[in-house]
Amino acid sequence: MYHHVKKLMYTVNIGEPDPRFGRMLLEQFGGANGELAAAMQYSIQGLNCEDPARKDLLMDIGTEELSHLEVVGALIRMHLKPMKRDRQAAEDDPLVAVAGGGGVALFDSMGNAWTANYLKITGDLAVDLHSNIAAEARAKIVYERLIAFTDDKGSKEALQFLMSREITHMRAFAAALESMEKPQFSIGVIEPTPGLVDEYFNASTGESQYGDTDQVGPWNSSNGLHTVESEIEGGEGLSIEPYTPEPGTEKTSPVDSTPVGQFTNGAGRKAIARHEAQAKKVGKTAKA
Amino acid sequence: MYHHVKKLMYTVNIGEPDPRFGRMLLEQFGGANGELAAAMQYSIQGLNCEDPARKDLLMDIGTEELSHLEVVGALIRMHLKPMKRDRQAAEDDPLVAVAGGGGVALFDSMGNAWTANYLKITGDLAVDLHSNIAAEARAKIVYERLIAFTDDKGSKEALQFLMSREITHMRAFAAALESMEKPQFSIGVIEPTPGLVDEYFNASTGESQYGDTDQVGPWNSSNGLHTVESEIEGGEGLSIEPYTPEPGTEKTSPVDSTPVGQFTNGAGRKAIARHEAQAKKVGKTAKA
Amino acid sequence: MYHHVKKLMYTVNIGEPDPRFGRMLLEQFGGANGELAAAMQYSIQGLNCEDPARKDLLMDIGTEELSHLEVVGALIRMHLKPMKRDRQAAEDDPLVAVAGGGGVALFDSMGNAWTANYLKITGDLAVDLHSNIAAEARAKIVYERLIAFTDDKGSKEALQFLMSREITHMRAFAAALESMEKPQFSIGVIEPTPGLVDEYFNASTGESQYGDTDQVGPWNSSNGLHTVESEIEGGEGLSIEPYTPEPGTEKTSPVDSTPVGQFTNGAGRKAIARHEAQAKKVGKTAKA
Amino acid sequence: MYHHVKKLMYTVNIGEPDPRFGRMLLEQFGGANGELAAAMQYSIQGLNCEDPARKDLLMDIGTEELSHLEVVGALIRMHLKPMKRDRQAAEDDPLVAVAGGGGVALFDSMGNAWTANYLKITGDLAVDLHSNIAAEARAKIVYERLIAFTDDKGSKEALQFLMSREITHMRAFAAALESMEKPQFSIGVIEPTPGLVDEYFNASTGESQYGDTDQVGPWNSSNGLHTVESEIEGGEGLSIEPYTPEPGTEKTSPVDSTPVGQFTNGAGRKAIARHEAQAKKVGKTAKA
Amino acid sequence: MYHHVKKLMYTVNIGEPDPRFGRMLLEQFGGANGELAAAMQYSIQGLNCEDPARKDLLMDIGTEELSHLEVVGALIRMHLKPMKRDRQAAEDDPLVAVAGGGGVALFDSMGNAWTANYLKITGDLAVDLHSNIAAEARAKIVYERLIAFTDDKGSKEALQFLMSREITHMRAFAAALESMEKPQFSIGVIEPTPGLVDEYFNASTGESQYGDTDQVGPWNSSNGLHTVESEIEGGEGLSIEPYTPEPGTEKTSPVDSTPVGQFTNGAGRKAIARHEAQAKKVGKTAKA
Amino acid sequence: MYHHVKKLMYTVNIGEPDPRFGRMLLEQFGGANGELAAAMQYSIQGLNCEDPARKDLLMDIGTEELSHLEVVGALIRMHLKPMKRDRQAAEDDPLVAVAGGGGVALFDSMGNAWTANYLKITGDLAVDLHSNIAAEARAKIVYERLIAFTDDKGSKEALQFLMSREITHMRAFAAALESMEKPQFSIGVIEPTPGLVDEYFNASTGESQYGDTDQVGPWNSSNGLHTVESEIEGGEGLSIEPYTPEPGTEKTSPVDSTPVGQFTNGAGRKAIARHEAQAKKVGKTAKA
Repeated sequence: MYHHVKKLMYTVNIGEPDPRFGRMLLEQFGGANGELAAAMQYSIQGLNCEDPARKDLLMDIGTEELSHLEVVGALIRMHLKPMKRDRQAAEDDPLVAVAGGGGVALFDSMGNAWTANYLKITGDLAVDLHSNIAAEARAKIVYERLIAFTDDKGSKEALQFLMSREITHMRAFAAALESMEKPQFSIGVIEPTPGLVDEYFNASTGESQYGDTDQVGPWNSSNGLHTVESEIEGGEGLSIEPYTPEPGTEKTSPVDSTPVGQFTNGAGRKAIARHEAQAKKVGKTAKA
Repeated sequence: MYHHVKKLMYTVNIGEPDPRFGRMLLEQFGGANGELAAAMQYSIQGLNCEDPARKDLLMDIGTEELSHLEVVGALIRMHLKPMKRDRQAAEDDPLVAVAGGGGVALFDSMGNAWTANYLKITGDLAVDLHSNIAAEARAKIVYERLIAFTDDKGSKEALQFLMSREITHMRAFAAALESMEKPQFSIGVIEPTPGLVDEYFNASTGESQYGDTDQVGPWNSSNGLHTVESEIEGGEGLSIEPYTPEPGTEKTSPVDSTPVGQFTNGAGRKAIARHEAQAKKVGKTAKA
Repeated sequence: MYHHVKKLMYTVNIGEPDPRFGRMLLEQFGGANGELAAAMQYSIQGLNCEDPARKDLLMDIGTEELSHLEVVGALIRMHLKPMKRDRQAAEDDPLVAVAGGGGVALFDSMGNAWTANYLKITGDLAVDLHSNIAAEARAKIVYERLIAFTDDKGSKEALQFLMSREITHMRAFAAALESMEKPQFSIGVIEPTPGLVDEYFNASTGESQYGDTDQVGPWNSSNGLHTVESEIEGGEGLSIEPYTPEPGTEKTSPVDSTPVGQFTNGAGRKAIARHEAQAKKVGKTAKA
Repeated sequence: MYHHVKKLMYTVNIGEPDPRFGRMLLEQFGGANGELAAAMQYSIQGLNCEDPARKDLLMDIGTEELSHLEVVGALIRMHLKPMKRDRQAAEDDPLVAVAGGGGVALFDSMGNAWTANYLKITGDLAVDLHSNIAAEARAKIVYERLIAFTDDKGSKEALQFLMSREITHMRAFAAALESMEKPQFSIGVIEPTPGLVDEYFNASTGESQYGDTDQVGPWNSSNGLHTVESEIEGGEGLSIEPYTPEPGTEKTSPVDSTPVGQFTNGAGRKAIARHEAQAKKVGKTAKA
Repeated sequence: MYHHVKKLMYTVNIGEPDPRFGRMLLEQFGGANGELAAAMQYSIQGLNCEDPARKDLLMDIGTEELSHLEVVGALIRMHLKPMKRDRQAAEDDPLVAVAGGGGVALFDSMGNAWTANYLKITGDLAVDLHSNIAAEARAKIVYERLIAFTDDKGSKEALQFLMSREITHMRAFAAALESMEKPQFSIGVIEPTPGLVDEYFNASTGESQYGDTDQVGPWNSSNGLHTVESEIEGGEGLSIEPYTPEPGTEKTSPVDSTPVGQFTNGAGRKAIARHEAQAKKVGKTAKA
Repeated sequence: MYHHVKKLMYTVNIGEPDPRFGRMLLEQFGGANGELAAAMQYSIQGLNCEDPARKDLLMDIGTEELSHLEVVGALIRMHLKPMKRDRQAAEDDPLVAVAGGGGVALFDSMGNAWTANYLKITGDLAVDLHSNIAAEARAKIVYERLIAFTDDKGSKEALQFLMSREITHMRAFAAALESMEKPQFSIGVIEPTPGLVDEYFNASTGESQYGDTDQVGPWNSSNGLHTVESEIEGGEGLSIEPYTPEPGTEKTSPVDSTPVGQFTNGAGRKAIARHEAQAKKVGKTAKA
């Protein structure tokens, strides 16, 4: 159950409204890595979580992000104000100006409506914590770029507040993941195939016109990995032990099926016969 | 530049086609955490990357995921075959059966068209590596669930292959991130606000009908954090030092602006006057 | 600023989980007329509202809807539980079962991701209240249909609670609109064209194979309206006084412009000449 | 069955083309509250309607909106013309200029493709009429804002025509709803819970930094409502009589279920055992 | 199975970066007719194709388009560079600048995320080849417009390369379609209804304000067609022989069904009775 | 300007309603290749067309498709009827049943909302006619599959009517394209690069596990084409004459730019210095 108090978590003050900067800021209101995305990702993970301690964590941070949504909304609203009356300002984002009357709404800086496709919710707690750590990193870098694109001191300060909190949350999610004491690369419960899992596959090779080359880095040899060359380049390929079905159990051949689109359920038998006759002729042509 | 060879990276063999399982598998073809999403996320990060070593890593794995897209596509196509002619099978996913003729296409298990909104590409290498680690964790758990939902040995083996590779990639991305030698919670270049960044905010409290309580975990006290209670619950709140603009520099008041929707640029002055008169009356009513 | 308490606003209890009904219920979690849509529509209207009294109303109801989101989420989660392990249940919504691990997420009953395109936010307070009244009516009818599709007593009771609140909100929004004392059909500040605005246009006529006929109802003659027949059917048409530009001021003819697609900015002059020669010939053919 | 005559319902004439205004106008062609949205919402409600009189109304207005789509399309096309050749004009909306050759298409002013998610169609006639009244109010305010953003007399006149018709339709839909003689807050057929339905819940309280306070308006006391304070703020809360299942009938506990993500259907038993052992240790840590 | 070599298929060189042109170019990276759309459409048709010869064709061209995606991506990245630091450049596409750090991503020129809704994949080989011919024609015209909008010689050359290849592919797809030796208007296997299929229906008539008239062209009389006038205009209409069900077999009347929205499954019987009484009264009113 | 008459263009009669078949039919109402897509694609091309003869054609067919939308809507509505009351029927498409009250709406068979992303409108008349020919082919094959999936005679007849008309339209669009007398592979006005345009690029080679091989077909040698092997496979590659900028005119190097994500506009200089020091160390590690 939620309660709202009218006091904003951070008191927003700005100088001159800058509607183009306001539009940029929409990234953090209705954008892919914005405050609503954060609030929803964590809160809904929280609804699903049956570990009461980490559920509490998810609800704590999910709720704080709702308060941030309000703060960034207040900041944006101040910057967008000129869009209400000023034709030139309105040209920059007519969806805000004409359809929205100059107020904030759940769009990003290019007018894309917020979508739950932004969210990463798998219902596996450890996986979700990984997703949340990455989400906080993304939100942090976006705030940093916004700070770099304005000179307005009040805006910079508000964004600095919001940006700092992302690092707080990143630390908290990392602590929660560590406290689960799962080995670093253990996800879920089914083990990966030994041997195969250690093979780093070199699928991009050669040299580009701009000096890029086939390089070697720690990812070729650390965390238990070693490099395998692609058979396309004459390498040995991955050490796959293919599944060999016992005779008679493999019932679906990839080659004998009716081509997609030629079924009829009884309709047009004559047409099919004619079509098949054609197909034969075509086959000959193709192989000739 | 890409080259394709007709040999699949993994030889797929299945027993009886199971169209409903085929539909589930679409999650990994055209779904949010599927092979196209992985291929595109890493390859496009690679296009943008100017660190040649890690660019190579991104292109290696991005290209391998394209080969996986082909493998999982072959697996799905075998399972979907009955949708071509069998009305009952077709009912389960008419978009595949009727519009797609029973073949695979870039939809997930509920028929949602694949969208680039699934991707996480920020152009900051360290952040992108965080996103990739999380993406691999998600792909792994989805493969694991698919394995659990089939008894077909050939399908299980193919999925085991694909699942194992996600862990390989997770290890490689982690090695790449570690090799950048950034401190664990350092994202971008602007430092978070000291003090404030250490405060874990307790925004969800109390007890639920089902026994959930306000819990304490490592996230309240490790990674430099300590807990702060919300002012809504009588706590001290976050230690925010609000920006106090020098007199005269704060030019945009949040309260004095024309209400959204009441501008006219010269149209309907008379109507506005009448409207404002009304608004006054309303105000009185409201406060009464 | 928001605070969350762990106690649900309504204590949910159900009998046997019914995953197919759980899927139906997703309409009110991540669907077009569901609780998140309501919470976001009212709260964001509230952020934009500069009438402090009605802003309070919008925040009151927007916040209550967040609490409802949590209640309906708890209800759905209980019904979806079998999707975690039961293959048959999982077939019904593989997006929930395979990608989401059987938990709730922001999808509707057909797996569509929630989108802000569902929201109606114009920044004009009176218009927004009209939209909210309609939104509550829609939410009410959807809850009613859900009640009709289950026999589970606990689910029926929870839905009855949520459904009742929609009527409460509908009454409150209507009271707020009435208290603005705007005439019933006065929207914004620009007056509609007198005369023209009174003409009901009869654009659909005749008789169908199923007995539908051209009918007359109160909408043809009340609220100041009278009926006008279409000129296509030999009627007089709407009483439009077309704008006749003073000679010389009308600078853009709809007929003299270069056809779309035939510009080149200097590229391919020769090709254009050839193309235009062709076009002339075609014209002759067409008119022949 | 439809027929088209080449004569536009309104003769459009403009002065100087203004491509940026043309882009704004796209809101009413392919936008959320535009003419296609209106045409489709009413016409499809009409297809579903089994009250022949109101079905006629829905088809009349739905068809008129198609004619408006054509009028606004003609107006926009004139304004967009410079996008065909003029690089500067093209920069403003490259989707129109480069992909569409400078013509109109079903996009809004920010390039969003029209989507049926804009429509509100419930199949309940009274509810649909509510939605239509609100839709007309929104279309009216958007036209009004467009009029305010141009000085071109011909455009202003065309928009005035279109805007006036929205009020006509609003009156007609209101007349149709009134003629159904349903009580104002009666939606569908199931009654809301008495008592509970009268309680206005005060979910947002306190004072903001900008002077917003917890206000009282007619919505707290008219239409049968009275105010209830939230239990979070020490109030009595809503008068909910919770459903108390008879012992034995409540079969689904919200707490005893397997956590989301830990199922395996037989895969990886050993891994689960190891995982559960871990989980126990984590629990201790968390509560410590 | 895919392999990537670092050498670009075409060596891109540009003069001064032009971020607004870079934004236009995004149409061919993440846009509806761009290189990813082409790569995916052909490659996935290829996965489904069971004619090995034409499957090879689809994989050849699908793979080449992936290499083009990389070329156009390199071109765009050079043009977008100023968005990384330059506030004015960043204003033009804040989604690229702020969320994407100035790199390319799968968005079009207006920031729309790439969607598989752009693709046309039916699983019928001949139909798919028709779709591919049209797709190449569209890609060609978009490249042509882009060439017309820049003066940068290096960009023009790169686009000329990409544009030329679309014509190559168009020729190849046409050759593949011709080699199937299907009659020009034979699609699938069910024959259209003789007689009816020859009737061109004149559904748009009259004269517009701008001189448009009801014209006659080859489409009224060639390819076996002749013109039929609409019954709405007094014509004879299409020569439809309606299906007349044998008495007793036609079980679903379009008029006797319960109106949408009035079902209850046992809920609210009393309310329904009251509602039906009302409905009767309304009916009277309507017909009066 | 449009007029609607209540008579359907085709009298629909069905036997037993079949809600699952009704759901399949939604493909042709609100689906990617359905009647609304056709109506909108042609009508909006018509709005933009400045060749009056072919504009008439586009409006004729666009309007007829609107009448088809109504026919297929009537057919679907009859089949969906049981969804109003029957829980089992409702489970199949809860979006229709619960949100839509069992009526038709603009969704496809998997509940995807119709989107203008389905449309292909370029504003180049010849290109648009190519797109329309392909669109009719797709619509034809979808109707054919629907006919194959039902035994209901009335439904089969109605679909046969609609399917036949697609072939009529395909013939008319082909006649219109032919009458423009453009050479078969001439699109727009800029010529493709001679030589290069004749090279068929063999980007997919080798042999698959299932017997697929590198084949030769007419597309390798007709329409002026000949085959070129990829340099990745040791071939000569395409005959590209790369643009060699005159010294000094090539101002943007692809390698010297600041890596994406490392800009600051003055913020955090100290942090950058530290970061760059780190980056150096990383570089060493990577190359080691």
